Amino acid sequence: MAGSDFGTIFKITTWGESHGSALGVVIDGCPAGLALCRQDIQVYLDRRRPGRSKIATPRREADEAEILSGVFEGLTTGTPISIMVRNTSQISRDYGEIASCYRPGHADYTFDAKYGFRDYRGGGRSSGRETIGRVAAGAIAAKILKSMHIDVCAYTCSLGPVRIDPERFDREAITDTATSMPDREADARALAYLESCMKEQDSAGGIMECRVTGLPAGIGDPVFEKLDACLAKAIMSIGAVKAVEIGDGILVSQRRGSENNDPFITRDGIPCKKTNHAGGILGGISDGSDILIRAHVKPTPSIFRPQETVNQEGNPVTLQIRGRHDPVIIPRAVVVMEAMTAITVLDAMMVNMSAKMSSLTNFYNRPRA
Amino acid sequence: MAGSDFGTIFKITTWGESHGSALGVVIDGCPAGLALCRQDIQVYLDRRRPGRSKIATPRREADEAEILSGVFEGLTTGTPISIMVRNTSQISRDYGEIASCYRPGHADYTFDAKYGFRDYRGGGRSSGRETIGRVAAGAIAAKILKSMHIDVCAYTCSLGPVRIDPERFDREAITDTATSMPDREADARALAYLESCMKEQDSAGGIMECRVTGLPAGIGDPVFEKLDACLAKAIMSIGAVKAVEIGDGILVSQRRGSENNDPFITRDGIPCKKTNHAGGILGGISDGSDILIRAHVKPTPSIFRPQETVNQEGNPVTLQIRGRHDPVIIPRAVVVMEAMTAITVLDAMMVNMSAKMSSLTNFYNRPRA
Amino acid sequence: MAGSDFGTIFKITTWGESHGSALGVVIDGCPAGLALCRQDIQVYLDRRRPGRSKIATPRREADEAEILSGVFEGLTTGTPISIMVRNTSQISRDYGEIASCYRPGHADYTFDAKYGFRDYRGGGRSSGRETIGRVAAGAIAAKILKSMHIDVCAYTCSLGPVRIDPERFDREAITDTATSMPDREADARALAYLESCMKEQDSAGGIMECRVTGLPAGIGDPVFEKLDACLAKAIMSIGAVKAVEIGDGILVSQRRGSENNDPFITRDGIPCKKTNHAGGILGGISDGSDILIRAHVKPTPSIFRPQETVNQEGNPVTLQIRGRHDPVIIPRAVVVMEAMTAITVLDAMMVNMSAKMSSLTNFYNRPRA
Amino acid sequence: MAGSDFGTIFKITTWGESHGSALGVVIDGCPAGLALCRQDIQVYLDRRRPGRSKIATPRREADEAEILSGVFEGLTTGTPISIMVRNTSQISRDYGEIASCYRPGHADYTFDAKYGFRDYRGGGRSSGRETIGRVAAGAIAAKILKSMHIDVCAYTCSLGPVRIDPERFDREAITDTATSMPDREADARALAYLESCMKEQDSAGGIMECRVTGLPAGIGDPVFEKLDACLAKAIMSIGAVKAVEIGDGILVSQRRGSENNDPFITRDGIPCKKTNHAGGILGGISDGSDILIRAHVKPTPSIFRPQETVNQEGNPVTLQIRGRHDPVIIPRAVVVMEAMTAITVLDAMMVNMSAKMSSLTNFYNRPRA
Repeated sequence: MAGSDFGTIFKITTWGESHGSALGVVIDGCPAGLALCRQDIQVYLDRRRPGRSKIATPRREADEAEILSGVFEGLTTGTPISIMVRNTSQISRDYGEIASCYRPGHADYTFDAKYGFRDYRGGGRSSGRETIGRVAAGAIAAKILKSMHIDVCAYTCSLGPVRIDPERFDREAITDTATSMPDREADARALAYLESCMKEQDSAGGIMECRVTGLPAGIGDPVFEKLDACLAKAIMSIGAVKAVEIGDGILVSQRRGSENNDPFITRDGIPCKKTNHAGGILGGISDGSDILIRAHVKPTPSIFRPQETVNQEGNPVTLQIRGRHDPVIIPRAVVVMEAMTAITVLDAMMVNMSAKMSSLTNFYNRPRA
Repeated sequence: MAGSDFGTIFKITTWGESHGSALGVVIDGCPAGLALCRQDIQVYLDRRRPGRSKIATPRREADEAEILSGVFEGLTTGTPISIMVRNTSQISRDYGEIASCYRPGHADYTFDAKYGFRDYRGGGRSSGRETIGRVAAGAIAAKILKSMHIDVCAYTCSLGPVRIDPERFDREAITDTATSMPDREADARALAYLESCMKEQDSAGGIMECRVTGLPAGIGDPVFEKLDACLAKAIMSIGAVKAVEIGDGILVSQRRGSENNDPFITRDGIPCKKTNHAGGILGGISDGSDILIRAHVKPTPSIFRPQETVNQEGNPVTLQIRGRHDPVIIPRAVVVMEAMTAITVLDAMMVNMSAKMSSLTNFYNRPRA
Repeated sequence: MAGSDFGTIFKITTWGESHGSALGVVIDGCPAGLALCRQDIQVYLDRRRPGRSKIATPRREADEAEILSGVFEGLTTGTPISIMVRNTSQISRDYGEIASCYRPGHADYTFDAKYGFRDYRGGGRSSGRETIGRVAAGAIAAKILKSMHIDVCAYTCSLGPVRIDPERFDREAITDTATSMPDREADARALAYLESCMKEQDSAGGIMECRVTGLPAGIGDPVFEKLDACLAKAIMSIGAVKAVEIGDGILVSQRRGSENNDPFITRDGIPCKKTNHAGGILGGISDGSDILIRAHVKPTPSIFRPQETVNQEGNPVTLQIRGRHDPVIIPRAVVVMEAMTAITVLDAMMVNMSAKMSSLTNFYNRPRA
Repeated sequence: MAGSDFGTIFKITTWGESHGSALGVVIDGCPAGLALCRQDIQVYLDRRRPGRSKIATPRREADEAEILSGVFEGLTTGTPISIMVRNTSQISRDYGEIASCYRPGHADYTFDAKYGFRDYRGGGRSSGRETIGRVAAGAIAAKILKSMHIDVCAYTCSLGPVRIDPERFDREAITDTATSMPDREADARALAYLESCMKEQDSAGGIMECRVTGLPAGIGDPVFEKLDACLAKAIMSIGAVKAVEIGDGILVSQRRGSENNDPFITRDGIPCKKTNHAGGILGGISDGSDILIRAHVKPTPSIFRPQETVNQEGNPVTLQIRGRHDPVIIPRAVVVMEAMTAITVLDAMMVNMSAKMSSLTNFYNRPRA
């Protein structure tokens, strides 16, 4: 069925395969009057672009965004914004082995089971390149949020055993380092770890986090469109994510109520929480504190050591993966998490606009009868 | 906005507040011809009914389901099934304190921020009683799945520091024990722990798990309606859940690819995985192995020791919660997790029916031109 | 599939059969803070209630609405509003003939074809009683619109050959007359016509119209959620409607552009149209003029003269319909048209709130960065 | 809001403006395994392509479709199919007048009212070129339906006063004639009429019809996703359509029940209707007879004679439209009607697949427990 769209009012539809002619996204429901140019998109795409460091796949893609519609004289018009990125670096080669056998940890078998066959070139639709459309759309959502002084920031939290030290948090490092870590010291250690993984023809997993600051209280819709539920779906839909936490997440299951409750205090006359174990969401609605989301990402399934598996005929084979693969997914997935979070939060803000009668009647400037 | 419905083809809409006159659900898109009676629903509702043990709120509710539509001569007709449960035990009392102050860990403040005011009686819509509609709908989904030999089973995995031993897994214990643990020995220890919490006027968190067996490969729709993404939303939408894991979940972030990949083998001529770190989902599509989901649940925010907070005017107050509250949420939330999982999986199976051209043309019995 | 919900932000889900225990609706996404009581709903339900005149079915139903949730201390809370009407006048009798044969003009055969069997009592879900939920929801939508000085008014335009004279338009007559005509003189002639139909054991069709005044320009979303497209769906979904017109409707196909174009002029400094052939909608968006919709309704298929048809075994039978049936549907369908129009227009207003960047940033009171 | 997508399982999202760089569509939910090539799309696009006759705009567009994703080795893969058509004939010129004034009958004013400004080049998103995406998607839907022996055929029924004679119905003439009339004799008379309109700097309206043959009974979902309701929305969403009829449509309002009811008979052992006043739909569900839909289309609002209107400042101006415009919309809109009908019917067939328990259990080949 149609599973490639996300959102209610700010809705995105992504399309494209790893080795097809192009990938892209249609963003529908973007408000009119936003200043938008190709470069706004490109900055985000460059953050997920391959070939930037030795721990990323050497596949070289320009990943140049083209805005095909929805922008006129530098402003969004309120109509669908179509963005396309041409694939340019599809290496023509023999996919024989991948075409006929099931790579462990990949979606080869499940696509065959569902659709009867698959586009096996580079993973087809299940490739990480699918996220190009998400990131392009996220660039727009983030720009809108930023104009309302709402900031969305994702970063690498850990790679294998190497964890960042929050005390050393350095935002610029996120885009500077190869690991997308906000801690240059941890970055150095993580790189050393990843090199050892590569030497052993192996790959690593890790944790990424995303923080939303400046979001007003009141966003999110009980009971199924809760902000945390929507974020969980958004983040779990990113390939390789196997767990999602909100706020203190997994720690809460070991706590007592007296430890975990965040007392309310008042700041500038507005109720707020003294601590933020909840991660900025109570009852599925934002509470004015920072939103904090954490995602656990599995190690890249494409490893270069020989693996046992079966082919389409069900016969055992030894698989030797070749080609270009990241030893770790996170550094390039961080911007995808940021994009999905921005899209989710913005959409929730839009659908929230009619939550009160007074909002509706004031908006239409019609004092209630 | 409308946030109270869930699902695409098998769609549920829940309604009702803790202390309103009734709660319920409309199930739309249920196939015609399912044998269904009140008792099918009641069995599930009884699993979440309060007042069954000393670790559950002493509020006594019969929680009797009434089927108002969609069933004729014992069979579903394909039209909406409306199910209602009357509230009978709303204790009439002074809500003054709760009405005017913000309980830590509750949604009092966020509902006020969103809607301008709230039904403060017993938590209103943010009460755990909201899940009655989910469970009633889940009973139907589970019955349909069972008729296709697909089993959904949720249980308590841990309460505070007490964890079940998978070696002692005893399915009957889930519904027998007060903790919903499938391990009677762990149940006894958990009860002792909970009593100590209660004595200290405190509460406990825990972990619950859900396993789906018998699900065919091919269910779930890339890239936003992935089965794991839909499950994450479904489970995170349950009040008090703060983290969701699929398969090995948080463990994968520390693993190497060579440890985490599940090799494919062949069983009865069908490809399957030798291990199941992935939890039965690859690329967002079921792979034929068991689906495994884990949820981390925070301790009940309603604790009886005095707490610091503020009231609606922003003034600090000391809150002394009274009334009837579970010291731990999980034992009664387990059936909610089971319900949400069953609904999610069934809906994904329905939307999958037109994934292949051959499925469509065979269904309409019209050999392709 | 789930076909019983309508709307995006203001969403309704109806349920119930003609002879089941109850019928109802869940309204989700209603803004918080609307004063609402049972009587607001009842006034509308009474307009579609049977048994009020000799041209309506003598079935007596109190059709008393019960509000089960979503209202607290006289105000909507923003959570789902569940409304139920108990059936009280189901006559217990032998449905043998209707159960086994296919009534011409009814949905008996198509329900059997789709679902394998049907609730044959009084038409089941395909009965006109299904509209109770729509009308209850429409009462709320209309009240919200009225608070913004937007008026929705539907009425009977013609019954068989008898047409109202717009010069004699008398709004009170709509609710006073048995025909729901806004013209007492036409009402008298229509009643005479209907009596002649009844004498001949026959039934009549007719036309109903709905006018929306006070709607601001800018409502409706190109290209598939155009206001006229949404209204067409809303009105065509009412049983027995076979054609929907917007503005001058069918007349435009015979016109020339120079006749049909509405010139723009300025009134109170605001552009508006000199004429309104367009019926208040241009490019799918409201233009500030009155919205005008017209629906053509077929004659009641239940007639008392013997009819030829076949039974479930495919054998020819002569059908003699008994029971209680309106000789014309329109007088009671008028309020359904009004309800569906109000729901459609309100929902379109809600989703329009984020159409401009300035709307979004002003709403959240955050001057753009 | 997001208004550019249509459908539930077979979902399309269109994008693009008249004078932007490209237009297109994403088709999501297309079953895997359909043979599909560029030419399948092109044949349909050529039917709406301008510049083919003297009664169509002389704008020359190749309208060449490019399939960007979702097809592998000649077969659809089940993933989103992205189709793009580059604009090549945007004449660069002074839009000054159109940019600042409101053309009667156009959406200039309403887009300004909604979005604050508009892309005024050639009508922007409200241009007829928007339908390119619909037609490309419709080509796929029609191919799928054809493979199940279901035929969708739209044609011009009347242009101004000239009507086709059903006795002379000649299917090939639809694509052969400049008017898309299935009657060459009427085509000749219609052309003469249109020339007289053009001479008088005026335009004409007309009626188009669409017939679906071979659709099985049981398609369509009560009560809001009725097949006729979905078709009404689909067709009314086409620019310039002002009325939609099903079956005998507007005629039914003048009929008696005894005239309008279609008696059931049996053909090949299957119940069917002796007549088809209903247009193949009863209770919102297909009944096995031909589906018949009729649309009334207004005359092209762009006429070359001077018109009175106002500009954005609200001052009266005399407008002299220049450029390239069809004197009548219908001949090129016929394929759009065919496309929207095919998409609607196919989607309804897909969502119908789980209507019965036996369908579900048989599909998953799991005999019911």
